[in-house]
Amino acid sequence: MKALEEKILKEGVVLPGNILKVGNFLNHRLDVGFLCEMGAEIARLFRDCGINKIVTIETSGIAIAMGAAIHMGVPVVFAKKNKSKNVSGEVYCTEVVSFTHKNVSQVIVEKKYLEAGDKVLLVDDFLANGMALKGLISICREAGVEICGAAIAIEKGFQKGGEEIRAMGIRVESLAIVESMTDDSITFREQ
Amino acid sequence: MKALEEKILKEGVVLPGNILKVGNFLNHRLDVGFLCEMGAEIARLFRDCGINKIVTIETSGIAIAMGAAIHMGVPVVFAKKNKSKNVSGEVYCTEVVSFTHKNVSQVIVEKKYLEAGDKVLLVDDFLANGMALKGLISICREAGVEICGAAIAIEKGFQKGGEEIRAMGIRVESLAIVESMTDDSITFREQ
Repeated sequence: MKALEEKILKEGVVLPGNILKVGNFLNHRLDVGFLCEMGAEIARLFRDCGINKIVTIETSGIAIAMGAAIHMGVPVVFAKKNKSKNVSGEVYCTEVVSFTHKNVSQVIVEKKYLEAGDKVLLVDDFLANGMALKGLISICREAGVEICGAAIAIEKGFQKGGEEIRAMGIRVESLAIVESMTDDSITFREQ
Repeated sequence: MKALEEKILKEGVVLPGNILKVGNFLNHRLDVGFLCEMGAEIARLFRDCGINKIVTIETSGIAIAMGAAIHMGVPVVFAKKNKSKNVSGEVYCTEVVSFTHKNVSQVIVEKKYLEAGDKVLLVDDFLANGMALKGLISICREAGVEICGAAIAIEKGFQKGGEEIRAMGIRVESLAIVESMTDDSITFREQ
């Protein structure tokens, strides 16, 4: 998505440790109009798949998932990173290592929110080593729902997550794939 | 908002410890169409205030804030609960005690996302003891931005947060105010 690449070039900042900071529009300040444009593109890419539910993971996945859900007319279920007092009943649970935060989280989804026959689109803001996405895949497989694909705002093509998840047979569509980045340049993969 | 009261009666569950669970539409599974309806009502209530930014707090505030922002045409800034590796630069910081999670979080907003002249609407999913909202108020005051009001999906009228924040001179609009609740009944305050 050309508009996203241009936005990353204009507003993104590369931080030490291979971190691409896009807090100005994607995960601290939310450019809601642009999130809806990205959502429209996700809806277009997966328009013929019969998807009836989006699954994402807190926190930064929620806004882009909302953008897509508005255009697809489906609900969003977000996996929670730490079991909280208002989660009751049976849950699917897995562990996710965060690349950004350097920690391990228990990630849960209440069983009743993933139902037999669901056709699910996974959505997240970033795909780097793929740990969050693999956690969601593990939960969806345990629930027995169909995974129609994964839509990502920004994939770091130089990390292994995208390749590994595509090798699992899952369709991954990333709106922008960063091929390489340094302090003063970012290049994208042709799509 | 009558439709919200009806949805709470239909889908809400009262859990021990004065917890009202609305995970079916507000904070685990997101009913995106209904979140946009709530957002439209928030936009209507604050339509003449010149608001140029919504400020909320992760995680559960993000979806309702997005719903409002879409109708108001403004960006959302969400306060982060734990400083992460992709936060750089100067931050406003405060501590918030969570009623639901029974813990204390450091809450931060990068300084550059709150600018002189901003007219801010605070948005959150719940208002109980008001700790999260007071944290956002503290950050906004430190930043010197104007607080035009606070829009809440569900206020627990039997806890003290709403009264205290209104006593601070801040306009608080709650789409539904729960006056009392037991295992098998929920009553709302007339508005």
